[in-house]
Amino acid sequence: MSDIIMDHVIENDDVISLSHHFNKTNQSLLYPLSFLNRNSSLSSSSSSSSSSSSNVLLILNQKITIPPKLFINILNNADLIICADGGINQLKNFTDSHNLSSSIKPHYVIGDLDSATPENLSYYTNKGTIKLLQSSQYYTDFNKSVSLINTYFNFPQIDLKSLNTLDELETCEEKLNNLSKNSLKKIDIFVLGGVGGRFDQTISIIHQIYKYKLSRNHINFTILNPEHEELIFLLTPGENFINMPKLNQSDEFKLLGFNSIKSRHNMRNVGILPLLNDTIITTHGLKWDVTNWSTSLKSKVSSSNLQVGQEGFIIKNSDYIFVNVEL
Amino acid sequence: MSDIIMDHVIENDDVISLSHHFNKTNQSLLYPLSFLNRNSSLSSSSSSSSSSSSNVLLILNQKITIPPKLFINILNNADLIICADGGINQLKNFTDSHNLSSSIKPHYVIGDLDSATPENLSYYTNKGTIKLLQSSQYYTDFNKSVSLINTYFNFPQIDLKSLNTLDELETCEEKLNNLSKNSLKKIDIFVLGGVGGRFDQTISIIHQIYKYKLSRNHINFTILNPEHEELIFLLTPGENFINMPKLNQSDEFKLLGFNSIKSRHNMRNVGILPLLNDTIITTHGLKWDVTNWSTSLKSKVSSSNLQVGQEGFIIKNSDYIFVNVEL
Repeated sequence: MSDIIMDHVIENDDVISLSHHFNKTNQSLLYPLSFLNRNSSLSSSSSSSSSSSSNVLLILNQKITIPPKLFINILNNADLIICADGGINQLKNFTDSHNLSSSIKPHYVIGDLDSATPENLSYYTNKGTIKLLQSSQYYTDFNKSVSLINTYFNFPQIDLKSLNTLDELETCEEKLNNLSKNSLKKIDIFVLGGVGGRFDQTISIIHQIYKYKLSRNHINFTILNPEHEELIFLLTPGENFINMPKLNQSDEFKLLGFNSIKSRHNMRNVGILPLLNDTIITTHGLKWDVTNWSTSLKSKVSSSNLQVGQEGFIIKNSDYIFVNVEL
Repeated sequence: MSDIIMDHVIENDDVISLSHHFNKTNQSLLYPLSFLNRNSSLSSSSSSSSSSSSNVLLILNQKITIPPKLFINILNNADLIICADGGINQLKNFTDSHNLSSSIKPHYVIGDLDSATPENLSYYTNKGTIKLLQSSQYYTDFNKSVSLINTYFNFPQIDLKSLNTLDELETCEEKLNNLSKNSLKKIDIFVLGGVGGRFDQTISIIHQIYKYKLSRNHINFTILNPEHEELIFLLTPGENFINMPKLNQSDEFKLLGFNSIKSRHNMRNVGILPLLNDTIITTHGLKWDVTNWSTSLKSKVSSSNLQVGQEGFIIKNSDYIFVNVEL
């Protein structure tokens, strides 16, 4: 990259095509909507049989206010459902308040289990949910859940039920993970919660997702803000195509269970959030596209931007950067 | 500071006194609870008649879910009440749903006024609220509100009612502010909203509060997360005493209108959030106090810490850093 950074912003029409930008070499493809329908064009698995990642729904301890239909779609596309401690209360409250099927249950609940109520714990364990007590205060419930998920898919030799202890699961998984970096199965963790609650918890999740990117690159995280119907994810340095086609009203209702009220007609809000480092970005498919634009919390931030790309949008970033986008 | 950074953490008892740390030279004193009762020991004005800052309540466009009594206390301690555009809808919904006095009204509503409903606009303008249209898309509603507030207290020569335009207020205020840095009145802006909503809006507010610290050091911002009863503010480099005594149940109920359910008995959750830079911190009065501890989103973050200091807590920080603390 040249030493001279051009600070260039253009304003696009409300709908543009990105077809000439698609499928370039060295372009990472992201499918943020694949957790809703993994067998459609919204997912990489439809175009390539080799990319067989596993989908996990991880429910944290934060009130769930998303439409029930959206929740059911996420549930139906998950291979594994985990509740982090009090997440099990949130699941119970949500399914009760919407009269959802009583067959809904997580595969595991994990944590020091001081937030999960005894009633909810027995309600779900009676249905077959496995309860894993890991009482260490050194690991967060989020850490514990990620250890469980990685173990479940990649280290089946560990007998999860035998690990009802302090931190045996986390230390075991850490050791095995460090030993076997090359042959690990890809996992997509869809996190319900984490952002939008207490501010230090939000920032802590952001921090941890970055740390996992370095130590467990085979795991991808997508956060759903459970109060505002937006996704948050981390982009690795390079050119990233966020494959997230604009939806017509009927598809939107089928997938999301609602017709979203966007701040501008059929344009998702997008924020590009330099939380980790000063970063140089170039974008395609946003209302205000930038070229070699330097962004940091100390200088300039592209918030309240809008998606105008029919197929999604492209961000080329010099360093790790977080993105949020409306559903 | 030595080149050798000690990475030292100690665990304190649940209650400790900070009296021997108090009133040191070069210590900045912060009173985050002064917006609740400016004439008590919770506020600097009780101890020093010279520090006569003005209190402003700024209501952003985000659902208000705080207890009505807490809201009334904030309102009664504000010299000026501003609604940023759709903030006026939130105020109306909140006062309606809690049957609060119909005499409650903001002094100003400002923005491009595309979010404020015509009904709410006429409801409040009929009561005397002044409506200021500033339609520029270059400034956010938050920017527009801060320009208005700074003008109101520091540049009374500007006739606000004559500025019903695109961006005349913002450009005028910017020019006057840059010309007269030394003699400006101190302003404490208490922001209801901004954090906890859409994630790019949260990060944008954080970004802007930092920028205002550099350009308008006479204005202090305290954000109240309207969904989770916590305060967020920015610390300048140096030693900061956050004067925020532990409250007994009766005082807590009087001030907050509720007895807060803390994660641990009578200990506020505290997060120290290095959103701007790698920072070296030393703390006193937290459950896990650190000495010369290097923190950044890429390395380590002190989240879910707890206040154990009877009088508050102290953070010595090498760079600007954000803090969140439960009410």
